[in-house]
Amino acid sequence: MSAVVSRQWRLAARPSGGIENDQFEWREETLAEPSDGQVLVRTLYLSLDPTNRIWMSDIDQYMPPVEIGDVMRGGTIGVVEAPGRTGMQVGDIVQGMWGWQSHAVIDARAVRVLPRDTGLPLTAYMSVLGGTGCTAYFGLLDIGQPQPGETVVVSAAAGAVGSIVGQIAKIKDCRVVGIAGSDDKCRWLTDELGFDAAVNYRTETVLEALRRHCPDGIDVGFENVGGDILDAVLTLANFKARIPLCGLIAQYNADGPVPGPYMFRNVLMKRVRIEGFIVTDFIRRFPEAIAALSGWVAEGRIKYRVDVVDGLENAPGAVNKLFDGSNQGKLMVKVSDEPAS
Amino acid sequence: MSAVVSRQWRLAARPSGGIENDQFEWREETLAEPSDGQVLVRTLYLSLDPTNRIWMSDIDQYMPPVEIGDVMRGGTIGVVEAPGRTGMQVGDIVQGMWGWQSHAVIDARAVRVLPRDTGLPLTAYMSVLGGTGCTAYFGLLDIGQPQPGETVVVSAAAGAVGSIVGQIAKIKDCRVVGIAGSDDKCRWLTDELGFDAAVNYRTETVLEALRRHCPDGIDVGFENVGGDILDAVLTLANFKARIPLCGLIAQYNADGPVPGPYMFRNVLMKRVRIEGFIVTDFIRRFPEAIAALSGWVAEGRIKYRVDVVDGLENAPGAVNKLFDGSNQGKLMVKVSDEPAS
Repeated sequence: MSAVVSRQWRLAARPSGGIENDQFEWREETLAEPSDGQVLVRTLYLSLDPTNRIWMSDIDQYMPPVEIGDVMRGGTIGVVEAPGRTGMQVGDIVQGMWGWQSHAVIDARAVRVLPRDTGLPLTAYMSVLGGTGCTAYFGLLDIGQPQPGETVVVSAAAGAVGSIVGQIAKIKDCRVVGIAGSDDKCRWLTDELGFDAAVNYRTETVLEALRRHCPDGIDVGFENVGGDILDAVLTLANFKARIPLCGLIAQYNADGPVPGPYMFRNVLMKRVRIEGFIVTDFIRRFPEAIAALSGWVAEGRIKYRVDVVDGLENAPGAVNKLFDGSNQGKLMVKVSDEPAS
Repeated sequence: MSAVVSRQWRLAARPSGGIENDQFEWREETLAEPSDGQVLVRTLYLSLDPTNRIWMSDIDQYMPPVEIGDVMRGGTIGVVEAPGRTGMQVGDIVQGMWGWQSHAVIDARAVRVLPRDTGLPLTAYMSVLGGTGCTAYFGLLDIGQPQPGETVVVSAAAGAVGSIVGQIAKIKDCRVVGIAGSDDKCRWLTDELGFDAAVNYRTETVLEALRRHCPDGIDVGFENVGGDILDAVLTLANFKARIPLCGLIAQYNADGPVPGPYMFRNVLMKRVRIEGFIVTDFIRRFPEAIAALSGWVAEGRIKYRVDVVDGLENAPGAVNKLFDGSNQGKLMVKVSDEPAS
């Protein structure tokens, strides 16, 4: 095998506020030959997620932060170019976490081979049938436990996770209200995804709008954002409301201490359950979620969007789309062309 | 039956900060005769609890606030003086919620008759075998779910609830660290109640002291206080830590918005569950708790203290002992003498 050069973004500096290009360093590294149990993969798609910002910070978190000098962490889909003696085949499509690089030599046990005969594009496995869809599925159903007729509020509702959460909640016969950052996104939620109502947090007072759209209060608040939005949800929380805490994107770029919700007292007053979770806690049950989500996608009951940015070199700039509200649908980078099928 | 006069404290004004005497009005009311299903009771003991302060505020809460002009709400134990046609007997000892008054005519279904042959003083039924003990029992075991070997931190640990929480956690083979407001209280926790360690929040930095006393992190944080203490617990929370939220006494007297914990992000980062609860949610299971607690008290595995203030007229002043840290053990008012047994 001739030497393969991997183009890589490595973490060069920790952000103190937003993500800047100069926090990454571009490197071209010649990869070693795969040893026993390793495969060489070429990256097709790289997932960009709000949690990337958490991994860049040297704070206590659910995984170790990315070290300075390491390849930036990220979910990936790729094609096997050299399977070594792993039992995989050249051309197998695999999903893993080898990060922001064009090629990688990795342990075969760290990837899973994707099915090829589903009729779904590969980008579906990086969105509705990947970690995104599983996050929505387990966060809503296991942590949120919505009952028919209950009211579910979803923040970042036009985002990759939120849009699926809302649609699952509709399938479970809930009243669903989404919060998003533009009239366009709000229309998409109500007109195409079937949300009962949507609130534009940039032009409406969230608390007043939620009060209007949730006449029976809020039973489940699927929280991706934090800040004022979480405060509004807590203010309107019903007794025994559940708040699956999936993200706090409002504060990831903060450069100092951020106060918790001012209506925190309602956790006590309304016997609310707030529960943080991470989708990897449910990894053994992914097949259950993927089976359910595949069925709903096939039936047209769940729609999803992807936002594909071309070229690994654009990853550092593209990730900021998650924080300025300019993307819609699951954000990912197309790193190289899919093999002809 | 000759007319009975009830001496009463009625709510006269809502506090904007701490509780003041002039927020209560002393009244002497002639009671109506009991009608069908009602009994006349004479109050023996009145429970004083931090939640009294919540009931005085006109905020959204787990019960309706006490209305201006109404008799102040409170847990009570009394003796039946006129049973009407209820099947009760003169001299029966009953527990209820008829509030801050010397006598009351109440619905017999709103009280329960206490057993008389237990060898325990009546004050036990207002502390370890009453709502206080049940709060500790269900909050720790049902919400906190401590496992043997885990570390449990209890705030307001020398308080009525906290002291029982810690002892139950010891019975469940946990490492138990209490937080209290004086060296005396801390010594009581470690030397008499068997806590593994205690932190004096007035003389020690809570975060540093907890870090020292919880080398394996915190798995359960039984929270009565909020503020800096909750922040310290969140900072040291282990993955999947549970925080039963029983009280937020640090902020009950606040005269404006109070920020939630600054380390709220750790709810996400550590997949923490924070869950507010109120003991009345478990009312059907009180017999289970009382049976367990009675056994532990009889075996000497749970000790408790009561702090009995004499005279209903002293109730408004006494309740502040809960907020300035000057009481130790379950605070109650002795309103009249127990009948000779």
